[in-house]
Amino acid sequence: MFIKIAREKNPLIHHITNYVTANDCANVTIAMGASAAMADFYEEQTDFAKISSALVLNTGTINQLVANSMLKAIKEYTLLNKPIVFDPVALGVSKARDGINFELLNLKGISIVKANASEIASVIGLDGKARGVDSTFVINDEFLEKARKYTQKTKRILAITGKIDYIISQKQIAKVYNGSIMATKITGAGCMCASLCGVFAGAIEDKFQASLCALLSFGIASEIAQESSSGSASFRVNLIDALSNLNDEEVKKRAKYEII
Amino acid sequence: MFIKIAREKNPLIHHITNYVTANDCANVTIAMGASAAMADFYEEQTDFAKISSALVLNTGTINQLVANSMLKAIKEYTLLNKPIVFDPVALGVSKARDGINFELLNLKGISIVKANASEIASVIGLDGKARGVDSTFVINDEFLEKARKYTQKTKRILAITGKIDYIISQKQIAKVYNGSIMATKITGAGCMCASLCGVFAGAIEDKFQASLCALLSFGIASEIAQESSSGSASFRVNLIDALSNLNDEEVKKRAKYEII
Amino acid sequence: MFIKIAREKNPLIHHITNYVTANDCANVTIAMGASAAMADFYEEQTDFAKISSALVLNTGTINQLVANSMLKAIKEYTLLNKPIVFDPVALGVSKARDGINFELLNLKGISIVKANASEIASVIGLDGKARGVDSTFVINDEFLEKARKYTQKTKRILAITGKIDYIISQKQIAKVYNGSIMATKITGAGCMCASLCGVFAGAIEDKFQASLCALLSFGIASEIAQESSSGSASFRVNLIDALSNLNDEEVKKRAKYEII
Repeated sequence: MFIKIAREKNPLIHHITNYVTANDCANVTIAMGASAAMADFYEEQTDFAKISSALVLNTGTINQLVANSMLKAIKEYTLLNKPIVFDPVALGVSKARDGINFELLNLKGISIVKANASEIASVIGLDGKARGVDSTFVINDEFLEKARKYTQKTKRILAITGKIDYIISQKQIAKVYNGSIMATKITGAGCMCASLCGVFAGAIEDKFQASLCALLSFGIASEIAQESSSGSASFRVNLIDALSNLNDEEVKKRAKYEII
Repeated sequence: MFIKIAREKNPLIHHITNYVTANDCANVTIAMGASAAMADFYEEQTDFAKISSALVLNTGTINQLVANSMLKAIKEYTLLNKPIVFDPVALGVSKARDGINFELLNLKGISIVKANASEIASVIGLDGKARGVDSTFVINDEFLEKARKYTQKTKRILAITGKIDYIISQKQIAKVYNGSIMATKITGAGCMCASLCGVFAGAIEDKFQASLCALLSFGIASEIAQESSSGSASFRVNLIDALSNLNDEEVKKRAKYEII
Repeated sequence: MFIKIAREKNPLIHHITNYVTANDCANVTIAMGASAAMADFYEEQTDFAKISSALVLNTGTINQLVANSMLKAIKEYTLLNKPIVFDPVALGVSKARDGINFELLNLKGISIVKANASEIASVIGLDGKARGVDSTFVINDEFLEKARKYTQKTKRILAITGKIDYIISQKQIAKVYNGSIMATKITGAGCMCASLCGVFAGAIEDKFQASLCALLSFGIASEIAQESSSGSASFRVNLIDALSNLNDEEVKKRAKYEII
């Protein structure tokens, strides 16, 4: 795993994200050994692209103004060949949201699409049955087939969070069994996963491994957090604590995943 | 009480709210068994109204852009006859704030106005003596008389937070004695109460009972939280923990209120 | 120290700040005994200036719209001769950010500039070597010389956070040795310091003493918090808890600083 590398490299992870979970996203980024810059002003995108190691985009509280900044940022990071993580929150819920998300998704340069199964279903052309930010979609063979084709066409990694997480590349599928039901009782679990994808994509070359490490770290930290939590808010505190203490040895010891 | 119903129905509670406490609002909504959607983009209001069970509006960090989205949302939810909770934060503090709030309050469709006594005083036409977000107004007979008339004219519920909470309908007044002074030591206590009103208004028909259940839940969770808190921040964690663990039996056992 | 005075006076501290750490800023403001108003709407600046005791400006997620509100607010507070704390987050990182920050810094009326060494270096005309929100600048004699000249020219206090904090006025330099490395593992430590500067500047006349009290309080609360923290998130909870419990006796007992 790559936690030691992330902590040593201390990559700067630039976010354009929602105002609901921005604090959590910054805190998990720092907890994992990276630095966080949250800058959504259009005029700053060129300069932030120069100094950052990865870009994390999250459309949770998207509007046209923020979308314009994301558009600009994607172009800048693509020019510099730097990794971009895209989190299409609540895709499929509204026409306006879908319009903005697909305009962004249609641009080259996005490296990792991190989302739940409903949202990824929409991304790859299925009906995601989306209802707000929660996923109701069950991953099946048709989904995996379509997802694989999407990765082949776009060269992107799909990082799909759920009871079982899936990381899908052109060549491999990883299934991650670590995690806690408590992560569904707080806002921002998915957003934090995207930030972790950004941290590792900013620290190592291989985006499949980066995504796998991110979701393993989150799943394992969730398990550690659950052990000593008294409810949803202490779970969140314990989760970020666990991420801030996590190391590669712990991840190797606790990891439950397979690559198929 | 209606916690079991809320947890079973899992209503989607759509918020247009401030960026200061949006995270807390989402987390208490989820803790109470509902789902949270925080979407303030004008172009999305029609679609979110279709899939949500209730709308919570909070004018904490209001500006004209967000106000336009609230205006649109109120119209959409009213057309669909879905409940709307309105939290006129810091009403009476600035002319611009009052202008926007009263433009929204003058629309039909709002079901519950949740606020502190200063803010409600402004709503019903008294001088609220507002100073920022804190209330300095003491509830008296004139206030209760005016408040009752307001509910008769508008068919709205007034849910008034304070040392003693008041829930006022056309026919009834409930006084809730549960609560903790610690709730005044954190930002967002009032905002969270509005979210809880949204959760129960999204789960049951009777808006008076929904508001009563919301303020009882918050008051009782505050008492539970206070018992094990070491300061204001651990109080906040414990409060959300307590909400995430709360059930109807606990509420019945601890509830201190009267209906007059 | 001035904690008792702050708790007794309960000054209203008006913030125009970023959406990432606004919740933390409000909570530390309240924890220290003040009240917090977070209002960035242009049309409200005149009214909020009238009722507030101090203004805290933080350019973390700045854009042109928010900058306009800050401009308006500075003018209003200056007219009323009320203190203004300015936190030029990530100054030196982008041209757009620098443009906005210096336009604001060039206005009269700012009382305290609170920032890390990289940011202050930019403020006083040195190369801050800025990289995102983190400081890489080491304070040296040239820096101190330039800083002193800046305070003489502008009559401002410089409150510089770091491993050692510096508070610089025209006549004095204070060095604060209290603090914890854990404060670098969370987002918003600097923002919270600015809020505390606002609290004390809103409570007492002497802005040098106000800044010193703010950074001592933050440093000492950090030390108390570290003792019982299991990671970065519990540190944040413990930090705000400690601030909410802090008193002048504790500060006097634990304070490690010198005035040179």
